[in-house]
Amino acid sequence: LQLKAQLGGDEGKHVFVLKTAKETLTGKYGEDSKLIYDLKDQGGELLSLRYDLTVPFARYLALNKITNIKRYHIAKVYRRDNPAMTRGRYREFYQCDFDIAGQYDAMIPDAECLKIVYEILNELDLGDFRIKVNDRRILDGMFAVCGVPDEKFRTICSTVDKLDKMAWEDVKKEMVNEKGLSEDVADRIGEYVSMQGGQDLAERLLQDPKLSQNKQAFAGLTDMKLLFSYLELFQVTDKVVFDLSLARGLDYYTGVIYEAILSQTIPASVSTPAEQNGADEAGVSVGSVAGGGRYDGLVGMFDPKGRKVPCVGVSIGIERIFSIMEQKAETSSEKVRTTETQVLVASAQKNLLEERLKLTSQLWNAGIKAEVLYKKNPKLLSQLQHCEETGIPLVAILGEQELKDGVVKLRNVASREEVDVPRADLVDEIKKRTL
Amino acid sequence: LQLKAQLGGDEGKHVFVLKTAKETLTGKYGEDSKLIYDLKDQGGELLSLRYDLTVPFARYLALNKITNIKRYHIAKVYRRDNPAMTRGRYREFYQCDFDIAGQYDAMIPDAECLKIVYEILNELDLGDFRIKVNDRRILDGMFAVCGVPDEKFRTICSTVDKLDKMAWEDVKKEMVNEKGLSEDVADRIGEYVSMQGGQDLAERLLQDPKLSQNKQAFAGLTDMKLLFSYLELFQVTDKVVFDLSLARGLDYYTGVIYEAILSQTIPASVSTPAEQNGADEAGVSVGSVAGGGRYDGLVGMFDPKGRKVPCVGVSIGIERIFSIMEQKAETSSEKVRTTETQVLVASAQKNLLEERLKLTSQLWNAGIKAEVLYKKNPKLLSQLQHCEETGIPLVAILGEQELKDGVVKLRNVASREEVDVPRADLVDEIKKRTL
Repeated sequence: LQLKAQLGGDEGKHVFVLKTAKETLTGKYGEDSKLIYDLKDQGGELLSLRYDLTVPFARYLALNKITNIKRYHIAKVYRRDNPAMTRGRYREFYQCDFDIAGQYDAMIPDAECLKIVYEILNELDLGDFRIKVNDRRILDGMFAVCGVPDEKFRTICSTVDKLDKMAWEDVKKEMVNEKGLSEDVADRIGEYVSMQGGQDLAERLLQDPKLSQNKQAFAGLTDMKLLFSYLELFQVTDKVVFDLSLARGLDYYTGVIYEAILSQTIPASVSTPAEQNGADEAGVSVGSVAGGGRYDGLVGMFDPKGRKVPCVGVSIGIERIFSIMEQKAETSSEKVRTTETQVLVASAQKNLLEERLKLTSQLWNAGIKAEVLYKKNPKLLSQLQHCEETGIPLVAILGEQELKDGVVKLRNVASREEVDVPRADLVDEIKKRTL
Repeated sequence: LQLKAQLGGDEGKHVFVLKTAKETLTGKYGEDSKLIYDLKDQGGELLSLRYDLTVPFARYLALNKITNIKRYHIAKVYRRDNPAMTRGRYREFYQCDFDIAGQYDAMIPDAECLKIVYEILNELDLGDFRIKVNDRRILDGMFAVCGVPDEKFRTICSTVDKLDKMAWEDVKKEMVNEKGLSEDVADRIGEYVSMQGGQDLAERLLQDPKLSQNKQAFAGLTDMKLLFSYLELFQVTDKVVFDLSLARGLDYYTGVIYEAILSQTIPASVSTPAEQNGADEAGVSVGSVAGGGRYDGLVGMFDPKGRKVPCVGVSIGIERIFSIMEQKAETSSEKVRTTETQVLVASAQKNLLEERLKLTSQLWNAGIKAEVLYKKNPKLLSQLQHCEETGIPLVAILGEQELKDGVVKLRNVASREEVDVPRADLVDEIKKRTL
């Protein structure tokens, strides 16, 4: 829930650009209305909403001649899709991307990307997960060795990518019937794509005479072995699997690719019957929450001189993770605190609004997150209820007696204990209790 | 610069949705390309990009039947304009809105909004500023008293709003020549709009027999007096001015309105000659960085049953503030730290990449922001230079001797002091030094 703050609050999430129909805006801005940006063909440019953050990032590097950067970016992307909303899929949604661009020694940035995905999924405590890793060059080498014609590599790649939601039999059918492979070739692919392992598998495949004679596959397998040695240093190999069935459909990947998958399934009470069939969805498998890889050619496509900048990165599906966290919060009995407010400034007596505002302002100035009810004479009970509802842990209560004595009654909402604290010590006392 | 992180990093800011032309995206996503959202007329809906965050917020409250909320929202808005980029004005830019919705006792949330603007501008240390406050009801009452016909209130309001970049003579000319007021009426308006003050001015105008007999003006002035009493408790009256010339062009305001203006001007070296003439720009005066007010009618416009939710809020022009901060940073000799990294894990000797990665991982796991150069055998000098350039304050240096002794050489980049720290104490030592 920490991340939500970075997205501009829980509410902001639902106010979508795409849904702002023209009529909604008309008649609310007076003479400024002429500045509203209509999308329909103004300026004559053919525009699209961005599909991901990777291509715009590559374009940004090329246009600004940046050869060396590490950054994260949280922003919205758009898919013309019919997604399953209850499972955190939308046509407009946030992605969080992390990318490392630059010419470095092999596999060090790649290992860091995987470490980051591992850390995020581990800390969010979303249950067990796996990160599948493969390499486009291994896939290409494998296709070559199995006898797939060059021009079919990409389309077969897309078909292999469906293995996470389709049985091998169906994938094979698509290869043979739709993509025109021979049964033999498909079967040979089938043998490879059933393989899973770690550094050991990379080593074993390096011994495979056919595969290791293919230049591409050899380079990929050598890097994979190196990658796993770094992943071991980063202590993440318990969740990372070298999986030859991982393909990822996007064209721009050139080396290592990966995808993180949660083991947890969504409780039946939340998903509707129509969605039980996960295979309906385009693009990503059920449970996939992050993916990425190396795209060494993309920046060069935007550079007028074709200068290349090697890049590796990962996209994390924040919306998807939030929906899982929300479902978890709903099913758990623990109350979610909906505010960061540390203390409510309250009063049991009438006519103390000014004193409440004064104290609130003093606490704000001292960096305390304080709140006050916007009422002249609220009842003490309703002030305490407000704390219970929102999870504010402390109440600073002012009364005639407290003002006379120069103290504030500080109440712990959970334990109901109250203690008089001198005004001068109040800030320190609140900080101590809300550390 | 703290705020930048919330926007998804410095870089993200420049990657604009609007500039994503269709060709940029084509041919990079393989079979997923069909999911790219073209804007041209798909679905047949007439769409606009959002012009501000206030109208979408009001719509959100109405559609979700929310009667009670306080929230902030940082997001992009779009203006079909020809803005002066060097002064932080764009057609696509971020706004930060803060709003309080709900039925409360008068002027308490309004005072909180002003306190927030005051705090932000004060803490960002952008030089002297003023927050002008007025009330739509006072303006309307004033117009009525001066003899402006009802149907011209809004358009005269827009003209008055230009007083911050046009001389009274020109404003008067527009009122008389373009908007058809008589000279008399315009002169009477002129007398009022030259008035500035605080609680005293509100009290004085309440004594004005004509103005105080107007119901609207009386209500506005009574609230203004109350507002200033709260602002005094919040200790912000040194910067807040009741200014009868403040009008704000937008139609949806119903009560208190305000606008924050920086006194600081942009150095001539930065602005181009063409932009010296601030009057070229539509909508906002030079130096205006925040504005807002009460809009009690807007939510009701979106509710099928017309149920009203009183609201007050403020929009802060983040982009504008950033451009001022950037200019400040450029002209100052102080070096801006471009990273949050606390420590670089380095080595003076060859073949220690694995040890460097292991230590980096350990530091990450302990919550330290650590970095390592992605090279097998970087030179110590280039590692130290990297720290100087980016402002990383500490270097943890590993060598054969250190490994044998179970220590790390911790170097302070600025002072060049080095000390051997036992591995077990390293995390604590780094935390202590980078608090």
